[in-house]
Amino acid sequence: MNYSIIRYILGCVFNFEAVFLVLPCVVSVIYKEAEGFDYLIALLISLTIGILLTRKKPKSNVFYTREGFVAVALSWLAMSVIGALPFVISGDIPRFTDALFEIISGFTTTGGSILTNVEALSYTSLFWRSFSNWIGGMGVLVFILAIMPLAGGSNMHLMRAESPGPYVGKLVPRVRSTAMILYGIYVSMTIAQIFLLLISKIPLFDAVTLSFSTAGTGGFAIKNTSLSDYAWYVQLNVTIFMFLFGVNFNVYYLLLIKKIKAAFAIEELRYYTGIVLLCVFIIAINIKDTFKSFLEALHHSAFQVSSIITTTGFSSMDFNTWPELSRSILVVLMFVGACAGSTGGGIKVSRLIVLVKTIGHEISRCIHPRSIKIIKMDGKKVEDQVIKSINVYLISYLLIFAVSVIIVSLDNFDLITNFTAVAATFNNIGPGLGLAGPTGSFFMFSDLSKFVMMFDMIAGRLEIIPILVLFAPATWKK
Amino acid sequence: MNYSIIRYILGCVFNFEAVFLVLPCVVSVIYKEAEGFDYLIALLISLTIGILLTRKKPKSNVFYTREGFVAVALSWLAMSVIGALPFVISGDIPRFTDALFEIISGFTTTGGSILTNVEALSYTSLFWRSFSNWIGGMGVLVFILAIMPLAGGSNMHLMRAESPGPYVGKLVPRVRSTAMILYGIYVSMTIAQIFLLLISKIPLFDAVTLSFSTAGTGGFAIKNTSLSDYAWYVQLNVTIFMFLFGVNFNVYYLLLIKKIKAAFAIEELRYYTGIVLLCVFIIAINIKDTFKSFLEALHHSAFQVSSIITTTGFSSMDFNTWPELSRSILVVLMFVGACAGSTGGGIKVSRLIVLVKTIGHEISRCIHPRSIKIIKMDGKKVEDQVIKSINVYLISYLLIFAVSVIIVSLDNFDLITNFTAVAATFNNIGPGLGLAGPTGSFFMFSDLSKFVMMFDMIAGRLEIIPILVLFAPATWKK
Repeated sequence: MNYSIIRYILGCVFNFEAVFLVLPCVVSVIYKEAEGFDYLIALLISLTIGILLTRKKPKSNVFYTREGFVAVALSWLAMSVIGALPFVISGDIPRFTDALFEIISGFTTTGGSILTNVEALSYTSLFWRSFSNWIGGMGVLVFILAIMPLAGGSNMHLMRAESPGPYVGKLVPRVRSTAMILYGIYVSMTIAQIFLLLISKIPLFDAVTLSFSTAGTGGFAIKNTSLSDYAWYVQLNVTIFMFLFGVNFNVYYLLLIKKIKAAFAIEELRYYTGIVLLCVFIIAINIKDTFKSFLEALHHSAFQVSSIITTTGFSSMDFNTWPELSRSILVVLMFVGACAGSTGGGIKVSRLIVLVKTIGHEISRCIHPRSIKIIKMDGKKVEDQVIKSINVYLISYLLIFAVSVIIVSLDNFDLITNFTAVAATFNNIGPGLGLAGPTGSFFMFSDLSKFVMMFDMIAGRLEIIPILVLFAPATWKK
Repeated sequence: MNYSIIRYILGCVFNFEAVFLVLPCVVSVIYKEAEGFDYLIALLISLTIGILLTRKKPKSNVFYTREGFVAVALSWLAMSVIGALPFVISGDIPRFTDALFEIISGFTTTGGSILTNVEALSYTSLFWRSFSNWIGGMGVLVFILAIMPLAGGSNMHLMRAESPGPYVGKLVPRVRSTAMILYGIYVSMTIAQIFLLLISKIPLFDAVTLSFSTAGTGGFAIKNTSLSDYAWYVQLNVTIFMFLFGVNFNVYYLLLIKKIKAAFAIEELRYYTGIVLLCVFIIAINIKDTFKSFLEALHHSAFQVSSIITTTGFSSMDFNTWPELSRSILVVLMFVGACAGSTGGGIKVSRLIVLVKTIGHEISRCIHPRSIKIIKMDGKKVEDQVIKSINVYLISYLLIFAVSVIIVSLDNFDLITNFTAVAATFNNIGPGLGLAGPTGSFFMFSDLSKFVMMFDMIAGRLEIIPILVLFAPATWKK
């Protein structure tokens, strides 16, 4: 294991987090809030550690999958500990465990909160929460890769570990250019959303924070009622942008380079759109009697389906009170998740497509034992190793899920609360059903349950394997 | 597709079901119940169809996996339709849908009932219910294979389709001898249980029906309270035999041929025993405050763990009222299931062992990309094709599960009821939690939900793939 390069990468992460912390300091100046000093303290701590760790260049550039996974997993832990500090120092969230839960929920784009009254927070802290959603959405290592040249050509291992999806390809030959293109698209779309929100004359602060939380598919809102009290135009804007940020960013790159036909031919996009439309329609019919018009039912159905499948977790109303069919569909969508290569969480549509294709493959093997068929995706063969990895991902996923539900059940809340709380954190959604529903909070869980869910949030965001590698004893053997 | 051999096998199934129906007729004579005539009518119908279908020998002996799967899937459907007839004719369960649900629940060893008052049934019908558990446990095709010589050496395809587990091996070179050994062990253990139950002086009828339902890990009881009202000795007897019938029958074969060391070295046996002991212990501690002594808590915990992991579904008390930790563990055990090659349902311990091993395999591949490792089970390499099939099984399982929960949720019962009702039928257990708990019943579900659960019960018992092959259009193409 090349420890020195991991140390160096960690140092970079601390340095960059210090840079990120400048923004809430600026917000505190604008709103004349004393919290700015608390964020400044966290900034200085992060910078000090960062400078200490990056003073010496790494001895060697040797860098494999193992180093990539460990570096990314540790970076996320480090980032979270620093990110929680201002909450504790400012007293906005005095208990460290709660503050850590909140910021991990932010960086992992979960958006579940231990707060019961979000509106009591300072503007500075509200901004930091939403900004953490935005940073976590595309990934901090990807950001670093876009900004500065890191050791050699092995950067791909970092990107692979942090980016969601079964296989992470480079858009262009150079990793750095790929990262820049991704962040370019991300920034442009965020700005576009902010502008379109401002048309409705909501405050700039609301527009910026809402867009940050939407772009990262995070779901931290600045009101206790999430998006319920915003006008229908704002809700519609967010509905559409949640959907868009849940799309594989390869689609936007293809559009940019004018390969329009190729962009819309991507299988994952088609299935993702299909699932969304189907579920929106079914739920709208199912809930229509509780609304004045079918259009209103359609509006809320579209908002909630978009919010859950992209794992954003905003709510336009309390969907916990909807009929069982709608609730069950939303629970299933929690697991489906958005597209690979988007900012969304969950299992991802492309994984499910490959998995379902293996079923057809096996059946046709039973029927015609001698025929040899291959599994294709977008016209290309899916390598056996990719299928294996997807299967392993699924199994680890189920295993961690089951163990988490059992541990959380020690708190003796009902099964729906436990099950959906784990589903909502592990899939980086935010609210679940029952007591952890959109009008609820995670504050009532024990510290043990909170730590389990923090683990689940990070494991969910990094798609499990990097976290397992981090904890495998073999990783740390010489 | 060789239609003529499928017709012939179906004919054999009808003939054998006629033979099975002789037993309830005998019971009706003993208890002087008029229902015997209704069972006689069903017997004659079955025999007539059977004789018509077996009059002509099959034109060809060509027999592949496809024919095996289709034959087994159709046999189970045919068996169920005939098996439901006496319930309808006698008026014990007047609606055909309900009668079909009840007998499918019987043959698939599920043991969930649409009846709210089991004790109102005639002895004849009670016997038929428990006997259906026994027939379904080891499988009717396996029974036919043991009794009569079927076409050529391709019988293995039938056995493979009907026997639970990721890979079905022959104990001895001849399929017929393997089937005979399996049924020999099955009959002997059932008789042993009956004798040991009779020591406690419970009525012979109770001892026989209880043993039938235990042996098949079915769970049909003859009292409304399941096993709650029986003495602790009876409950203990059933606890132990449920556990034993959940063990891979290979273990018993190895013991029979005096390979004792090899028998106890079987990995699946070790994990199965380990899981049971661990869960019994945790649940006993969790529920101990509601009992007079820890021993009593241990007694009920052991009964329930044994009942759920083997997918029998008996209850010694209403575990629906236990604390959440215990309930969650039981829900997870619903999915684990018993050993492959036992009479139990669920995913099976051996599948889970292989799946968990693939996780370790993938992690070590990430850490040491160049090392080549193989996955072993009981010292032998697990073939890639077996791992693929297990993965496909898991994916189809999850997919069918999700779709089932969504359809059942149309009835608008709570999520726990829907989720555990599907889990309890798909894993062939019987009672779930909530309204479908041990004191509840399946009668309140709509016909649509009942048909979904009937599908799940058969798909669960035959381990999905045969049912998927039956419905694949490619199967029926020339």
